Amino acid sequence: MAIQDEMRDLALRSKAASRGLARLSSAEKDRALSAMADAILAAAPALKTANEADLEVGRSLGLSGAMMDRLALDDRRIAAMAQGLREVAALPDPVGRILDERIRPNGLRLRKIAVPIGVVVIIYESRPNVTADAASLCLKTGNATILRGGKEALNSNRLIASTLVAAARAAVPGFPEDAILVVPTSDREAIPALLSQTDCVDLCMPRGGEGLIRAVTACSKVPVIKHYKGVCHVYVHAAADLGMAEEIVFNAKCQRPSTCNAAETLLVDRSVAARFLPCVTSRLLGKGVAFHADPEALPGIRFGAGNRPVEAREATEEDWSTEYNDYVLNVRVVADVDEAIAHIHRHGSAHSDTIVTADTVVAGRFLQEVDSAAVYWNASTRFTDGAEYGMGAEIGISTDKIGARGPMGLEELCTYKWQGFGTGQVRV
Amino acid sequence: MAIQDEMRDLALRSKAASRGLARLSSAEKDRALSAMADAILAAAPALKTANEADLEVGRSLGLSGAMMDRLALDDRRIAAMAQGLREVAALPDPVGRILDERIRPNGLRLRKIAVPIGVVVIIYESRPNVTADAASLCLKTGNATILRGGKEALNSNRLIASTLVAAARAAVPGFPEDAILVVPTSDREAIPALLSQTDCVDLCMPRGGEGLIRAVTACSKVPVIKHYKGVCHVYVHAAADLGMAEEIVFNAKCQRPSTCNAAETLLVDRSVAARFLPCVTSRLLGKGVAFHADPEALPGIRFGAGNRPVEAREATEEDWSTEYNDYVLNVRVVADVDEAIAHIHRHGSAHSDTIVTADTVVAGRFLQEVDSAAVYWNASTRFTDGAEYGMGAEIGISTDKIGARGPMGLEELCTYKWQGFGTGQVRV
Repeated sequence: MAIQDEMRDLALRSKAASRGLARLSSAEKDRALSAMADAILAAAPALKTANEADLEVGRSLGLSGAMMDRLALDDRRIAAMAQGLREVAALPDPVGRILDERIRPNGLRLRKIAVPIGVVVIIYESRPNVTADAASLCLKTGNATILRGGKEALNSNRLIASTLVAAARAAVPGFPEDAILVVPTSDREAIPALLSQTDCVDLCMPRGGEGLIRAVTACSKVPVIKHYKGVCHVYVHAAADLGMAEEIVFNAKCQRPSTCNAAETLLVDRSVAARFLPCVTSRLLGKGVAFHADPEALPGIRFGAGNRPVEAREATEEDWSTEYNDYVLNVRVVADVDEAIAHIHRHGSAHSDTIVTADTVVAGRFLQEVDSAAVYWNASTRFTDGAEYGMGAEIGISTDKIGARGPMGLEELCTYKWQGFGTGQVRV
Repeated sequence: MAIQDEMRDLALRSKAASRGLARLSSAEKDRALSAMADAILAAAPALKTANEADLEVGRSLGLSGAMMDRLALDDRRIAAMAQGLREVAALPDPVGRILDERIRPNGLRLRKIAVPIGVVVIIYESRPNVTADAASLCLKTGNATILRGGKEALNSNRLIASTLVAAARAAVPGFPEDAILVVPTSDREAIPALLSQTDCVDLCMPRGGEGLIRAVTACSKVPVIKHYKGVCHVYVHAAADLGMAEEIVFNAKCQRPSTCNAAETLLVDRSVAARFLPCVTSRLLGKGVAFHADPEALPGIRFGAGNRPVEAREATEEDWSTEYNDYVLNVRVVADVDEAIAHIHRHGSAHSDTIVTADTVVAGRFLQEVDSAAVYWNASTRFTDGAEYGMGAEIGISTDKIGARGPMGLEELCTYKWQGFGTGQVRV
């Protein structure tokens, strides 16, 4: 079958499955999830065998050690997958929540109610545990899902999906056979072909590196929710508690630099730069942070380093928009909150930005004007995360404005519809 | 300037204006709207002169009488524009609403708050009054807007926009000069060029015929919210109050057939078809409705017509998916609610569908399973409308699932962001 036809077929099957999922009760979905957890544990030997074949592919492709590690399934990871399924089962069902309700003068009662989106395509790299994770969140929210993992993980992914569906079908009569589909080919043309099925596919969520996400977005004809990267800022205002500011900068940069909500850039008001930069530099040097700074900030950084060796150079224009995922920090001295906001709008990724200040008026302006998914006052950027927000589960983070924004949990995997309850009302 | 550069410039100016709009208070926005209303009235003579030039273009293009009527501005329409601006000023500000709030165990307070989307492109046909209408709703919600009306309305649209902005700038210091922009060319290439500015344009809303909307959607690289057409269904279930069903069918089809929420198809359960079809046919014939029906429904329709002439023929496959915007009704006999829902999913446009029944279980299934923006029980499909929903104003109707769904008022012209209020919290 030509790839276009093959993807058409996949999309149609998924859409049909989504109709079946929309009929399931909360109890049925949770029963399916529990059965899936049991089945994943029982299938551990088979999963490791399938994964061995993938690891063989990975070796032949010359994957790096880190990539090979992400690809590997062992008993610990299989147990974690099962545990994840049980945790999702235990969460409240987001479908059916009443988001708004009104009774019109003619007696018509209108309800805005959370409902499944329909068919969700998830594109990700390597890690087969994402397969169970994404499938469980989509199932909990009544969505059919089409999964496309890394080509080197195809054997593992297909077996995980078929194990999950078989378990769910055994536990829940009427559970749709195509509720969780894996794109059965690693053909690169599969993605544009799948993402042109506008009448079947309702949403695509790519997860991974910026290159992957840009490629998916460029070819998609269906809505995409994503974030390209996290270039997050800590702005230390003139009226900041500098001790607090130092803690926040250190945490935002160093607590886990590989994450998208880690800070890449420190902006500091001119009036406190001379006091603040040496202190914060000294602290960051303990973690071996390198600095890309504007000429005005460099002396303070070098002074803070004292006799210690410091990697500090002038920042390039490109640096200001770079996500390092590493112990590297851009530093710029700014005149005031206006200059800070302008810098963030020009160079940021609209992900997470924070101001440290004791001035409520300035903080209010920052919170209102900075056009990012998450803005903080006197807190680390690292909090932009489903678990930290109390969402129970996270499927990704969005810097988009149409649809979900910020951390995406179960509620963000729903759309809504309007239900009208009448007693024969007609329009006059 | 090449069209790509010209649209880039327009998009950048609009994005900069959106930053300024995000800083305005509710009172400033409302003061601007009131000043705009006064200015539109004061500019009536100039507007009519500009409109004369457009009407001249329209005549030279050989526009139909109906199109020429839609293009024309007279004192009544100008007064209505001013009145519309005042009404929008009087509505509550949807920006700043707290949609969710939670305090985390670490003391971090999180707020999900309604904010402007940013830059909204609105594409529409002819009617220059839409220019003031759309601009006012976008301004109220703090969005910058780029308007693209019909090419024959360019003179009117440009003068309306410049009048609005001049008035707002006189009334509100700092009101951004580029808050309301009109695409200054009727070059067809302007639309794809504008809708490829993904870093500036946040949303496009096309309004008009299905052809226009499909063309816009096909070329856009930014999110589009739209409905292509309204193929709405009335399903008369076996347990319906047939008198109520007749009123609802009549209203849904005949009260205003040109609207997208008018019904195009009647589905009726086999067990009541013989009783219901003659009655409803007789009623609809009073409005000269023509029928496209399945073979099983045709005899009941012909019987209901009695001696009166009736236009009734067998429905084609295409008919079931056609929006007539006219006194034409598809009729199909179905076995049960499953067959009705399957028909709606296969042929409908996911706009508005209703069931008439006294059976609460069946109604519940219909309301849950029919995957449309608005689903009704014992009410006309004609209620899908911003005013009928109590939204105060409507900028369009969406059958999309990502972003707004159903009628779109002011709240639907907002997105949200997360604000975190800390006291120095860092992630552990």
